[in-house]
Amino acid sequence: MIRVGILGATGYTGLEALEWLLRHPKVQIVAATSRQANGNMLSDAHPRLVGRLKLLLEDLTPELLNERCDVVFSCLPHGASAHRITQLLKLGCKVIDLSPDYRLSDAALYQSWYGEKHPEPMRLGNTPYGLPELFADQLHHTQLIANPGSYATSAILPLAPLLKEKLIDPDDVIVDSIGSWSTEGRLHKFSNLFCEASESITTLSIGSHRELPEMVDVLCRFAGSKPRISFTAHLVPAERGILSTLYVRSRSGVTPNQLRECLHTYFYQTSFVRIVSNLPSTRFVHRTNYVDISVRENGDRITLVCALDNLVKGAAGAAIQNMNYMFSLDPTLGLVP
Amino acid sequence: MIRVGILGATGYTGLEALEWLLRHPKVQIVAATSRQANGNMLSDAHPRLVGRLKLLLEDLTPELLNERCDVVFSCLPHGASAHRITQLLKLGCKVIDLSPDYRLSDAALYQSWYGEKHPEPMRLGNTPYGLPELFADQLHHTQLIANPGSYATSAILPLAPLLKEKLIDPDDVIVDSIGSWSTEGRLHKFSNLFCEASESITTLSIGSHRELPEMVDVLCRFAGSKPRISFTAHLVPAERGILSTLYVRSRSGVTPNQLRECLHTYFYQTSFVRIVSNLPSTRFVHRTNYVDISVRENGDRITLVCALDNLVKGAAGAAIQNMNYMFSLDPTLGLVP
Amino acid sequence: MIRVGILGATGYTGLEALEWLLRHPKVQIVAATSRQANGNMLSDAHPRLVGRLKLLLEDLTPELLNERCDVVFSCLPHGASAHRITQLLKLGCKVIDLSPDYRLSDAALYQSWYGEKHPEPMRLGNTPYGLPELFADQLHHTQLIANPGSYATSAILPLAPLLKEKLIDPDDVIVDSIGSWSTEGRLHKFSNLFCEASESITTLSIGSHRELPEMVDVLCRFAGSKPRISFTAHLVPAERGILSTLYVRSRSGVTPNQLRECLHTYFYQTSFVRIVSNLPSTRFVHRTNYVDISVRENGDRITLVCALDNLVKGAAGAAIQNMNYMFSLDPTLGLVP
Amino acid sequence: MIRVGILGATGYTGLEALEWLLRHPKVQIVAATSRQANGNMLSDAHPRLVGRLKLLLEDLTPELLNERCDVVFSCLPHGASAHRITQLLKLGCKVIDLSPDYRLSDAALYQSWYGEKHPEPMRLGNTPYGLPELFADQLHHTQLIANPGSYATSAILPLAPLLKEKLIDPDDVIVDSIGSWSTEGRLHKFSNLFCEASESITTLSIGSHRELPEMVDVLCRFAGSKPRISFTAHLVPAERGILSTLYVRSRSGVTPNQLRECLHTYFYQTSFVRIVSNLPSTRFVHRTNYVDISVRENGDRITLVCALDNLVKGAAGAAIQNMNYMFSLDPTLGLVP
Repeated sequence: MIRVGILGATGYTGLEALEWLLRHPKVQIVAATSRQANGNMLSDAHPRLVGRLKLLLEDLTPELLNERCDVVFSCLPHGASAHRITQLLKLGCKVIDLSPDYRLSDAALYQSWYGEKHPEPMRLGNTPYGLPELFADQLHHTQLIANPGSYATSAILPLAPLLKEKLIDPDDVIVDSIGSWSTEGRLHKFSNLFCEASESITTLSIGSHRELPEMVDVLCRFAGSKPRISFTAHLVPAERGILSTLYVRSRSGVTPNQLRECLHTYFYQTSFVRIVSNLPSTRFVHRTNYVDISVRENGDRITLVCALDNLVKGAAGAAIQNMNYMFSLDPTLGLVP
Repeated sequence: MIRVGILGATGYTGLEALEWLLRHPKVQIVAATSRQANGNMLSDAHPRLVGRLKLLLEDLTPELLNERCDVVFSCLPHGASAHRITQLLKLGCKVIDLSPDYRLSDAALYQSWYGEKHPEPMRLGNTPYGLPELFADQLHHTQLIANPGSYATSAILPLAPLLKEKLIDPDDVIVDSIGSWSTEGRLHKFSNLFCEASESITTLSIGSHRELPEMVDVLCRFAGSKPRISFTAHLVPAERGILSTLYVRSRSGVTPNQLRECLHTYFYQTSFVRIVSNLPSTRFVHRTNYVDISVRENGDRITLVCALDNLVKGAAGAAIQNMNYMFSLDPTLGLVP
Repeated sequence: MIRVGILGATGYTGLEALEWLLRHPKVQIVAATSRQANGNMLSDAHPRLVGRLKLLLEDLTPELLNERCDVVFSCLPHGASAHRITQLLKLGCKVIDLSPDYRLSDAALYQSWYGEKHPEPMRLGNTPYGLPELFADQLHHTQLIANPGSYATSAILPLAPLLKEKLIDPDDVIVDSIGSWSTEGRLHKFSNLFCEASESITTLSIGSHRELPEMVDVLCRFAGSKPRISFTAHLVPAERGILSTLYVRSRSGVTPNQLRECLHTYFYQTSFVRIVSNLPSTRFVHRTNYVDISVRENGDRITLVCALDNLVKGAAGAAIQNMNYMFSLDPTLGLVP
Repeated sequence: MIRVGILGATGYTGLEALEWLLRHPKVQIVAATSRQANGNMLSDAHPRLVGRLKLLLEDLTPELLNERCDVVFSCLPHGASAHRITQLLKLGCKVIDLSPDYRLSDAALYQSWYGEKHPEPMRLGNTPYGLPELFADQLHHTQLIANPGSYATSAILPLAPLLKEKLIDPDDVIVDSIGSWSTEGRLHKFSNLFCEASESITTLSIGSHRELPEMVDVLCRFAGSKPRISFTAHLVPAERGILSTLYVRSRSGVTPNQLRECLHTYFYQTSFVRIVSNLPSTRFVHRTNYVDISVRENGDRITLVCALDNLVKGAAGAAIQNMNYMFSLDPTLGLVP
């Protein structure tokens, strides 16, 4: 059994990880930390877990965590996550980081988007990016995996193969994402209140979302150069799910069918990407690790739509996929059917 | 007092028109028709109206309607609307058509998008398009006004001035709309059920929405030629509202500020368009006739966001604005504050 | 014109009052206060008001408020409200208090439920309770009116006539209310977050809601003695509305029809109570000042259902009704149609 | 492996059963029927199942079903279900009936509530009622189990022990249930539309719900005589979940704590009933087979609140529990963690 600990277990990502880990046949959940709720029962923070998981929320030292756990999932906020992970890595502990701290390739880029210095700049660019559909070979026997952002995942999965195969113009890409409120975390903000979010279709960010540099960075590896992306994120009255609409221009002569074929070829042997013929809905992937992608003509552009559950494929599900790779298990273990 | 009748009063647009007309100081509601609910009280179809409006749902002949009404709002489905309106116009009755039947400029275009012949092809191209912010001068003393579509309104208002002033490239326009379920009407479809629509972010149409030719047609008058638009519409779990995101490229040297200025100049003296500095939300225009527009840089493109209530500015509110013009009243009467 | 000021204008009740007052033909809104947002534009707190109401949020002294206003609506929290109102009353200012501070008949009762001493105990029991359907004669030319609670309103309106006429047993009454999230105010609590409230049917309080003593107090005046009420309040994923289900036992021989008749008789000449034959829904009273009540047999009990919009008839609408009485205007002015 | 078939697989209960059965380690899903969608892929009706379950929707004869399946789950509507099940039972097939057809004890009662004759009146009163927490000993090696209604489950579980132990008055019981829209099925009704159900707190039935006689019937076995229950059901804007509030009077001298103890004693050794100290929410049992119950004083009554997921513990989860008993498996198999 793999002994797993969760850092920052009181948020939405923490709860989601706990519920999936509970169902995983090779996992034992051995630690859950929280600075604020230290000393409480985990089921006080998450009444769903009453009678299902008896665990104390603790404020554990890195040493104790390392002793108890084979791998730690960090669900801490950015900054705090890297500081804690640095200590764990030194002790030899394996870590899957659900925060954005190890996703970018460059410390200067990190600082410009997150407003603070990265504690371990050398690791940026050397940490495997946990998208097994594209980087499976980098995830075996590694000590640290950067779990991808949910908006980034919804853009990278459809675009990476098309850029790699040079089927689309890397300088003319639009990503328009419709997200749900759990992408904003379990935070006290006026905008997060039910009475503000209900009946509200609103724009969250235009060109300024922190997962934009993440997309550009990762896609650069496929395109050969930085693609030019305009990225907008919206929020709508849903709890889970991201549906991203991608507007691309195919290279001259390339048909929508060829794009569809290309995606089929890339994802045929993976387990969670479905190239669908109907129009995707987050409902069809709700509480699953699946990603639905469709391709359609749209005037003189091609439009791809990609739907996923941000708490599963965009967070906890991907983390478990990554853990399965790290420990050389069947990559779908605990995630299907 | 203007005596107003509503054709097809049992749907969402019909109810919305009735509620706004009730508040209008110069209006008397004198007729409400329904083929199916003929003979019932209007308040049986709309329990909100109990004690507020005592009216029978009738299946009136054009002659009776014309006798009783100074103006008729048609909330019938396309096709049915034109057939009924043809008869009313012959009798001299004034009509505001909330269906799409008189919006397009060309009968062949109508037939290709709606799959049936138009009963009055000569009127296409000659019927004023009821967007007073752009066509106020055409709306006085006219007999028939084509009330704009709600998705079309959300795209045309921000784009028309920019195309007219040649500030943006007409061949590189994307309209990505997030709509609410009332845009789909009060129809029995599986997709409309609460349990399907809840927690569902889904794509409704890619390049195939019937308001696409409407946008192109109307914007052509400003751009001088048909703009090339990729149009996608999504549906999210909200009852009212449309938020459209427009991706445009400004002509070389043109700044976002110049676009903003241009919109200010065009809409400064109108009553319902607000160029806002915050990011728009449908919540801020919910159950009002206002339209909020913002302009932002987004990579090498400029992104405009436009929010409105599809049942008000996208339907009943616009219809009342148009009626006010038709009868030479203050254009904001019954719609503010 | 009546010059109205709003204390605590940044909450949901404040916004609702502002929107209704804007539509009131005899009102001019002249002041809006906020301690925290002091100095901001009112439309920064409520973007719905952009272009509709230009007013600064101020932290005004009682003297300045009294100078500027004919009447002040207090939307402050309990405690803070009474302290501010005490000062205003001394200056001669008229006040409608939307907080619970002047609703109870007794200072000891207030202290036991609100945990603090009341600053003006003599006023408890002497302040008119602003439910015009029952106490219209007490509301003329008064200086202070206690605006009723929304849960209390939904229970008192159906029960008062039945208790007065001794048609039901006062010792066997259950009030089971299903409320929406705006009844909890615009407060930062974890439970208020969209991701907690969505897909959550939950119980808010059992026998411990602060509007329970208010119901008992007011109904005592009709029953002759304190009725014995079990009161439960629930919260469901809606923004507005309360639907209360009342379980009563009719006195021997009394039929449901007699209860219905009694309610008809009491409310026939009032403007906002509708005794309906269909089963009520908050949807039918949403954003109106109406109250829908139905009466049905249910085993050996009789069940009454009462639906209202907590922000309108349960707060701002009732306040405007009360203001109309205070200033001898038509009681429905600004509230219909 | 148990070979399972689903009758009426296109509805909400059918989908829920399919998803839980997919996760069950001892089950193979071998048939899914639909009269209307006969010939389509199951994943066309439920796009969630794309890539997870490849099965054709068929209109199978009882003979073919019996050949292929060890047990059949019937998710057909009442009436249709009994007719189909009669044939299957004759062939020796095991059946779990999720319809209400075999729940009542008496054919006359069935006819008076369902308006039609029961095809197998002798089976009424002799079919085990599939609530393992109360009737586990009757569920082994049986051929047919009547799966309980979801509203009935939420009332019976808390009340049965208290009535059995004579701790409460059987003649003074109120059940007030707040349900979600999936309790109404995947049916075309106007009331089911998103735009009707959103922002609507409404009453579904007062004293006339078909699960009322089911509650009375089953509880009669515990109370010794028919308890007198007033039952009201409401609908609120949620997809899943039922929260029922039960108002009871304890026998003289009996404290709330004694009721709590009694429930503890009865359910201590079962797996899915949690007697909780916090106030229940459907959110805490959402998509699980758990039932949360709390006990509180409420004036001179005691109030119990019971929350469950109507599609799981109220339908598919209970059916799997029942199947586990039928086949002598661990009762929690496929349902935890």
